[in-house]
Amino acid sequence: MDKQTTNWYPAIIFGLVAALVSVFALLVVEKSADHSNGSVATQQQNGDQKTYEWKLVTTWPKNFPGLGTAPENFARIIEDVSDGRIKVKVYGAGELVPALAVFGAVSSGSVEMGHGAAYYWKGKVPAAQFFTAIPFGMNAQEMNGWFHYGGGLELWREVYEPFNLVPFSGGSTGVQMAGWFNKEINAVDDLKGLKMRIPGLGGEVLNRAGGSSINIPGGELYTALQTGVIDATEWVGPYNDLAFGFHQVAEYYYYPGWHEPGAMLEFIINKDVYESLPADLQAMVESVTRQVNQDMLDEYTARNNAALIELKNQHGVKVKRLPQEVLDHLQAIAKDIYAETSATDPLFGKVYKAYSTFAEQAADYHLISEEAYYESR
Amino acid sequence: MDKQTTNWYPAIIFGLVAALVSVFALLVVEKSADHSNGSVATQQQNGDQKTYEWKLVTTWPKNFPGLGTAPENFARIIEDVSDGRIKVKVYGAGELVPALAVFGAVSSGSVEMGHGAAYYWKGKVPAAQFFTAIPFGMNAQEMNGWFHYGGGLELWREVYEPFNLVPFSGGSTGVQMAGWFNKEINAVDDLKGLKMRIPGLGGEVLNRAGGSSINIPGGELYTALQTGVIDATEWVGPYNDLAFGFHQVAEYYYYPGWHEPGAMLEFIINKDVYESLPADLQAMVESVTRQVNQDMLDEYTARNNAALIELKNQHGVKVKRLPQEVLDHLQAIAKDIYAETSATDPLFGKVYKAYSTFAEQAADYHLISEEAYYESR
Repeated sequence: MDKQTTNWYPAIIFGLVAALVSVFALLVVEKSADHSNGSVATQQQNGDQKTYEWKLVTTWPKNFPGLGTAPENFARIIEDVSDGRIKVKVYGAGELVPALAVFGAVSSGSVEMGHGAAYYWKGKVPAAQFFTAIPFGMNAQEMNGWFHYGGGLELWREVYEPFNLVPFSGGSTGVQMAGWFNKEINAVDDLKGLKMRIPGLGGEVLNRAGGSSINIPGGELYTALQTGVIDATEWVGPYNDLAFGFHQVAEYYYYPGWHEPGAMLEFIINKDVYESLPADLQAMVESVTRQVNQDMLDEYTARNNAALIELKNQHGVKVKRLPQEVLDHLQAIAKDIYAETSATDPLFGKVYKAYSTFAEQAADYHLISEEAYYESR
Repeated sequence: MDKQTTNWYPAIIFGLVAALVSVFALLVVEKSADHSNGSVATQQQNGDQKTYEWKLVTTWPKNFPGLGTAPENFARIIEDVSDGRIKVKVYGAGELVPALAVFGAVSSGSVEMGHGAAYYWKGKVPAAQFFTAIPFGMNAQEMNGWFHYGGGLELWREVYEPFNLVPFSGGSTGVQMAGWFNKEINAVDDLKGLKMRIPGLGGEVLNRAGGSSINIPGGELYTALQTGVIDATEWVGPYNDLAFGFHQVAEYYYYPGWHEPGAMLEFIINKDVYESLPADLQAMVESVTRQVNQDMLDEYTARNNAALIELKNQHGVKVKRLPQEVLDHLQAIAKDIYAETSATDPLFGKVYKAYSTFAEQAADYHLISEEAYYESR
């Protein structure tokens, strides 16, 4: 157990973007399992067809609502469609490997498959962040358009190629909330000195705006808000936030989630494992990941509504919009960071250029379609 | 051929909602095929597994961009994932049966599967319209949430049960455009006397606002706009509209598409056929339809952007927003129509109640998530 506990510390320190994982993984009892014998593919003869038994490791606690549902759904459905030719066993964070070891475990082939989010791996490859979410970036519908008809998935596969991994889009939360605050934000100056739990690029943006981004494990967040160790924390959205009880210790619930306009999650499969599959099983993996990808957004779309109503009507939560001048200021800082990082990291620059070209065009049409329609009704 | 030609006329007359089908189907050369011998399932022995050869009839011309891509994708992918156990041959509108005979052909079992839109069948069951789109209703993300986590799909299956059909969501265009106009709309009064090609519920709303909804076959629309027979027409969105050349004969391109906030299309399968499938093939059909359902929105999200840029930059199209007072007026009329129809048609009323309950909650959260985020950037 000591080995796994110490594995966590540097992972958290080195600036992980792990908005959720850095937190929940620490809540999980780490059941250390023997994973030294993980073979690339346990294959058995079943009639004339090989069967595959896969381990799927995740960055979420087992059955974590919403996010952790996707790997369970994948396992259930792939067994159904393949009539048992692929059997997948899902391991929560820490059960087989720690949350932040998912990427490495699938890359090395010690397990076959993983579910998490690309921005957790920014320490290995900063460009990976574009495949989850960036401040003021694309929402779920736009990300899916980019992945499947805008060259995004091809770029993602190129970025993961050196790690022997094949990525697939693995679900989205939709636009998140800006978070829970005990300090009102009425102007840009109110960001100065703001102590907020906000990891990754969002945290960098806040720091440049004069705030102070702080990494605090999930188990301590509630108390940290209650005692004033932090003034604010971001989390996900009503469905996940309600369960956490933040409304009991924070005064304001701010929107919109500028730092994370929908986290796009990922399935990753070891490339050798994927390529060794017969064509029909490869096609099934692609179909089922696409199905599960959409399913998560469908679930959040339904459940966030119900949770928001409970938060407002039963708990009297004060829902507030961040002022536009604050959002404009944060967006300007974010663009500076993207430009600076692009100048020093060519792969980051290449992906940013492709991402932002598609994003600008998507925003152009969404301004007069989705956005205008929302406003019209 | 006479028989099929006369089949069209009453179909168009009886107020079809068939925004696209009423039009394109008439453009298609109707290749009358012998469909008297259509058996429910052509099954062959292949080793120890049965194989299925299905006919899939559609309400679109063969390979019609966007809408017609979905059935082709379904056919290709289901053959891949099933390793040839299900083979699907796609027929465009009029090739085997006329577009508006799709529902009946699948219902009777003369073909196994269809692709179209539920609101085309409002003459058989008015409640079907909720499963495609209604004026000021839900957009694609909300419809998917309702179908898959809000009870919508179960209701849809209940509505189609008497017709021996199993429906699946079959792709969405996203929010459409309000259409092409040669008359400026600056106030509610400008709707009076407006001659517009707009079918279905949208047309009913326009008529009550003092306009005049006109059904004109697609092949005549371009000339009708050019000669002033109509003042305006709705179609889909930039990707499909650009190909049609409406920008050459209309002055203004209005948004947002209040009458059709994203058409959700459908796959329908004959119930006996579906239930006769082994469990793994049923699971494949479900996976692949979900995959194709998402894929269409992804494609429109990418391609509408590019087409809009071409319309604006190369063709100088004037893109204009309908005034909010006009939209408010149209929305009030739409709600009156839903209430009146609910009072006389219990099934319509039942579905409307479920639909609107989910829609109001979804709008509540989207106001502070998707909508607020669009506005913030």
